[in-house]
Amino acid sequence: MQYALGIDIGGTNIKALALTAKGRLLAQTVVPTSGGSRAEWTPNVRQAMTEIQNKLRTAPAWIGVAAPGLAAKDQRSISHMPGRLPGLERLDWQKFFRHPRPVPVLNDAHAALLGEVWRGAARGAQNVILLTLGTGVGGAALVDGRLLRGHLGRAGHLGHISVDPAGKPDIVRTPGSLENALGDCTLKKRSGGRFVSTNELLAAMENGDAQARRVWTNSLQALAVSVNSFINLFDPELVVIGGGIANAGGLLFPPLRKAVRQMEWRPDGARVRIVSAELGYRAGAYGAAWQSLQVGQ
Amino acid sequence: MQYALGIDIGGTNIKALALTAKGRLLAQTVVPTSGGSRAEWTPNVRQAMTEIQNKLRTAPAWIGVAAPGLAAKDQRSISHMPGRLPGLERLDWQKFFRHPRPVPVLNDAHAALLGEVWRGAARGAQNVILLTLGTGVGGAALVDGRLLRGHLGRAGHLGHISVDPAGKPDIVRTPGSLENALGDCTLKKRSGGRFVSTNELLAAMENGDAQARRVWTNSLQALAVSVNSFINLFDPELVVIGGGIANAGGLLFPPLRKAVRQMEWRPDGARVRIVSAELGYRAGAYGAAWQSLQVGQ
Repeated sequence: MQYALGIDIGGTNIKALALTAKGRLLAQTVVPTSGGSRAEWTPNVRQAMTEIQNKLRTAPAWIGVAAPGLAAKDQRSISHMPGRLPGLERLDWQKFFRHPRPVPVLNDAHAALLGEVWRGAARGAQNVILLTLGTGVGGAALVDGRLLRGHLGRAGHLGHISVDPAGKPDIVRTPGSLENALGDCTLKKRSGGRFVSTNELLAAMENGDAQARRVWTNSLQALAVSVNSFINLFDPELVVIGGGIANAGGLLFPPLRKAVRQMEWRPDGARVRIVSAELGYRAGAYGAAWQSLQVGQ
Repeated sequence: MQYALGIDIGGTNIKALALTAKGRLLAQTVVPTSGGSRAEWTPNVRQAMTEIQNKLRTAPAWIGVAAPGLAAKDQRSISHMPGRLPGLERLDWQKFFRHPRPVPVLNDAHAALLGEVWRGAARGAQNVILLTLGTGVGGAALVDGRLLRGHLGRAGHLGHISVDPAGKPDIVRTPGSLENALGDCTLKKRSGGRFVSTNELLAAMENGDAQARRVWTNSLQALAVSVNSFINLFDPELVVIGGGIANAGGLLFPPLRKAVRQMEWRPDGARVRIVSAELGYRAGAYGAAWQSLQVGQ
């Protein structure tokens, strides 16, 4: 059976999925990325592919790649990713795999959104934004049925909207960004050194910790204001929220929806739905596989 | 000679342009909108068309309309525009003109952006945002060569991003919006009752008025932070600024560029250009004419 291989290369793990052209899952694997140079971590990508091939006893017909950083316009590589995954920049993945068809390369949040639209929480939607809440805050936008890429491939970096213009610059110099108001990357600082993960923070809050509640309330407010701005900027029908912090479930979605309702512009009564992502850590690989099917027919 | 008629229906004036398919201006007119009901103001639209027809001695081959409010998905009418221009909502402009070809209807800021891309400051660009600074703050975004419309036609409402989450709700309930930080609609309040137009404010500032300087500095900062957020969200190569306040020229552009430079994310050194709109009050009519040429071939 022909299948598409979607590979999502993260800083910690490489996720690989084999999917039919209709999106049915045939096989999957997760291998650690590890290694501080291209020569060290790229064999692990090959290993993930080999594991899938061995299971299915045939090579993939299509391959797509998702990775952090900005994807090049020609979709052959990641053109910009300073700091992590050394050697990822400008690595041509079609050449790497010696694959006969184009191997499209997508930013990981872009890929996750396409995955959720294909087989997840946003199935069939034409206007969607995705936010991933974790160490940082990632994002992507689909408008009028098309993924926004932009001039440098950076469109949809939703974590880098300012919610506190007087605040400190974040990793890309944005003052008081949503990422810094919510991501685990700043939680230690925001909680006076007490917490390093939002899951810990929420556990403390459920045990009655007043400081934890204040920290979380501030984060939620920053998120609600941002989502409201995104509604006016991208006009989605649906806001999908994923990432580790989305596991907060009842502590996240009901208060977020309530806060957004209080400021949302509702032309003729229209409301935007806010829902949880469905594909979890596999969303990026789903999107990469989908993209490979689009370019490789 | 065949021509496209672009009509921009504003709250004060109706602007009509006759343009060749290449965008050469053949004739133009401006007539007051006036009238508090559909029966009162729509004859003025017809009059604008008649004036152009009489000048050119032939009917237009294509007609396009720009107007405030949200354009319907089928582009036949404005579907949502509460408050101003009574009777505009759901008025079918192809029927109104009894025109043989489709008469596309666009939101006025969307049209202005398409005009600037066709014949103005953004000629040939694929990724552009437009901000119009006047009574309110309007906007539109072109990403990957396509105008963003969104689920309800509200994509690109750049004036309704929050820059002060603790601020008061604006006209669409957005807390502390860019529009309220910069538009003439709030200037009286922001200046302790002293000014009603930014042009007056800037004149006072040039005469050494310290309060006027403070008010303008705050507005500029809100604009710079917003433009920086838009860069991360839409990834434009170009930011085009129009509207009456853009006439501030040297008091606006150099300090705005300087402030944006201090926070802009510059992958591999890339910088976004910030320029003045070129088509002035005619931008919307240019864009409407262009759109009529796209749908009516």
